[in-house]
Amino acid sequence: MEITGLRDIFLSQEEYLDTEVMVSGWVRSNRDSKNFGFLVISDGTFFTPLQVVYHDSLENFAQAAKLGVGAAVIVEGKLVATPEAKQPFELQASSITVEGDTEASYPLQKKRHTLEYLRTIPHLRPRTNTFQAVFRIRSQVAFALHSFFQERGFVYVHTPIITASDTEGAGEMFQVTTLPLESVPMEKGEVQYGEDFFGKKTSLTVSGQLNGETFAQAFRDIYTFGPTFRAEKSNTQRHAAEFWMIEPEMAFADLDDVMFIAEDMLKYVIQYVLVNAPEELEFLNQFVDKGLLDRLNHIVESEFARVTYTEAVEILQKQNDRFEYKVEWGCDLQTEHERYLTEEVYKRPVFVTDYPKDIKAFYMKLNEDGKTVAAVDCLVPGIGEIIGGSQREDDYEKLKKRMEELKMDLEEYEFYLDLRRYGSTRHGGFGLGFERAVMYITGMSNIRDVLPFPRTVGNCEL
Amino acid sequence: MEITGLRDIFLSQEEYLDTEVMVSGWVRSNRDSKNFGFLVISDGTFFTPLQVVYHDSLENFAQAAKLGVGAAVIVEGKLVATPEAKQPFELQASSITVEGDTEASYPLQKKRHTLEYLRTIPHLRPRTNTFQAVFRIRSQVAFALHSFFQERGFVYVHTPIITASDTEGAGEMFQVTTLPLESVPMEKGEVQYGEDFFGKKTSLTVSGQLNGETFAQAFRDIYTFGPTFRAEKSNTQRHAAEFWMIEPEMAFADLDDVMFIAEDMLKYVIQYVLVNAPEELEFLNQFVDKGLLDRLNHIVESEFARVTYTEAVEILQKQNDRFEYKVEWGCDLQTEHERYLTEEVYKRPVFVTDYPKDIKAFYMKLNEDGKTVAAVDCLVPGIGEIIGGSQREDDYEKLKKRMEELKMDLEEYEFYLDLRRYGSTRHGGFGLGFERAVMYITGMSNIRDVLPFPRTVGNCEL
Repeated sequence: MEITGLRDIFLSQEEYLDTEVMVSGWVRSNRDSKNFGFLVISDGTFFTPLQVVYHDSLENFAQAAKLGVGAAVIVEGKLVATPEAKQPFELQASSITVEGDTEASYPLQKKRHTLEYLRTIPHLRPRTNTFQAVFRIRSQVAFALHSFFQERGFVYVHTPIITASDTEGAGEMFQVTTLPLESVPMEKGEVQYGEDFFGKKTSLTVSGQLNGETFAQAFRDIYTFGPTFRAEKSNTQRHAAEFWMIEPEMAFADLDDVMFIAEDMLKYVIQYVLVNAPEELEFLNQFVDKGLLDRLNHIVESEFARVTYTEAVEILQKQNDRFEYKVEWGCDLQTEHERYLTEEVYKRPVFVTDYPKDIKAFYMKLNEDGKTVAAVDCLVPGIGEIIGGSQREDDYEKLKKRMEELKMDLEEYEFYLDLRRYGSTRHGGFGLGFERAVMYITGMSNIRDVLPFPRTVGNCEL
Repeated sequence: MEITGLRDIFLSQEEYLDTEVMVSGWVRSNRDSKNFGFLVISDGTFFTPLQVVYHDSLENFAQAAKLGVGAAVIVEGKLVATPEAKQPFELQASSITVEGDTEASYPLQKKRHTLEYLRTIPHLRPRTNTFQAVFRIRSQVAFALHSFFQERGFVYVHTPIITASDTEGAGEMFQVTTLPLESVPMEKGEVQYGEDFFGKKTSLTVSGQLNGETFAQAFRDIYTFGPTFRAEKSNTQRHAAEFWMIEPEMAFADLDDVMFIAEDMLKYVIQYVLVNAPEELEFLNQFVDKGLLDRLNHIVESEFARVTYTEAVEILQKQNDRFEYKVEWGCDLQTEHERYLTEEVYKRPVFVTDYPKDIKAFYMKLNEDGKTVAAVDCLVPGIGEIIGGSQREDDYEKLKKRMEELKMDLEEYEFYLDLRRYGSTRHGGFGLGFERAVMYITGMSNIRDVLPFPRTVGNCEL
């Protein structure tokens, strides 16, 4: 007989009820009486576990009765409805085969563990309810994003991980090298990068956007979905050194188009998870974040609000008393301001547009006022900024002037300027931090708990 | 009026014929006569470009007539059938708006360029026919892989890029660091990794498999899809320093299950591209690799052959005269042997199984003969090995013994041994080099031409 997954059994119960099935899984609990017992097993394909009833008619009843939490088993038997019980059906075992036993030292005995403790066993925590829910949803969110963009004809571009440039002139980057650190080749106080693998200094990417733009100017609509890195030593709940990012980019598109696709995308992804992971969301709503389901349903049904930065500052200034950081035109908005806008003022997601040019990146399109750029941040209740994007400067002269003002190395960006010399188009895009989206959709509050193997300052396990 | 993509127009022509449309795109060619002209434009959404006819009734006829290759335009007009012409329809322009002009220095004038030359302009080459075909197919292959696994309930796991371990004890790895290379902190001749970002020595991953196994032991069926790295200085057509890999892993599964899913996956992906990129494949078949379509259709229809390594060696030994490397039991198979098996002996894809343990990785399951392991390579005509996989050793004692034989650091692999202590299951998986698959499906022979921004020794542009 073939092994049937619990997902199939739960989603097509009618087909399996009153038939003989073979299932596999790991023991979640085992209660035995004198001549029968209940085994709860999960095979990882479905959130809800299966109850197995076994009797002393089994030749290995004694072995079954001793099975510990975590043991792997294969069970054959008949699936029968249990209308009077909590669970809809149970499996009446005709045989239980031990695939792999477990040991008493198994760290996941049946009791609640703190998330902090579970972080110390990243190789085992996916077996718990919370992480079964989180990581299945993570997988679904990833696939929903791909589906969303592919259905709309966007081309998936793998922008490079190792790079010789620094997208935003910004950040602290990880260096990538094959030079021996014990004896770095030096001459006159300079590292001899000619001897490094690529013949130059290289780092891990902080964004694929500029590379993505080159493909948008060929395929019109593209998206990236890959890992990005920041070597920031900030030890917060929201920052990891390695995280994934989605960066769509569209040619022949303006800031309105960017907002339209961003709103559509968020709703699509949330809707996908609502439909495909109802058991997981129910669990998270009950044990992790009581307002989760309401919030997700609310977003899907809302029309996102829109406000300019200048208008938003006027609104916020009236409330300066309540803020730690006082607001004035020209300042960057802090999370407290963002959350006030989306949670108190609009009570739904809001796009804030047209930020002062000096607090935004060089590539954003200068507005006619000469002071602001066509930037947009999408703020959502409970978290603040979830998406940042912009229309890009498509005018060769204006872009060059801005880069010169910022004393950037024009030669390094020759390829980027070329896009404005040869068939430039109005175009724009945005970045969605994937983990931030997963946190939002699962209600988890620490980024370490939505990354399979989180990398943060001082922490790189497995 | 809204801009309509050429994909929509070509795939739903009936809907658009004899209606007014607005399209956007980049000029591929422009032929003008005294009082009319033909513009061929591509918007990147569909492989076939659109012919636009314009007349001197346009107020900017002179401007239109001068439009150079690469310029970006927006055209309004009526779509009319052209039953007597090569193309099925053309657009009779009522207006042509120049979105972004181009310059005479545009490198992609209408003539054939060599692939070598195009590699020097990675930011522009996606605008050529060849790379329009290659990179759209690359995107489709990626999505088909996701769809294949998601439809079967596999959970997508993002295994880490930065790692403190070396999966196969194998390879030359890139080091990742925030230590200043000009003045690496040293003490008694040792690099002080305590001062590095993660407090230890870290590198770029060469495989996500071991991490993937931890998730398979929780979710049963999982897959990874992410970038992997090799700092090998080999400058061949088939090696890149940065490439993407797919690594499915299944619990409660043996080598047969691994082969079954691998065969199914390859056929699914090829079928997906045959259906969704017929124009691109037609082009590649005509200009890049004449046998491409035959080969792809053949694979979809074949049942893959199976042979053990020992049987394969017997077959190959009889042909030792023709090989550069002579075959004997215990040797690794070279590409010449692999291609002979799949192209001459079986004339279809073939799985070679049960390799000598000494030429395979430590984690592969020891067969009962004590000499071979439950490994499998999938060989395909035209390329040789495209997939390598195995059933994993699930017995704690046997695995530990093998690791001790190989003098591995058991402490570093404690997590991996844990999987054999707590509910071990028979399990297995494989790795598919994504670029190798894309090369196979596009007929491109150099890995630099299927990577958007290839990284090879001495080469890290953009």
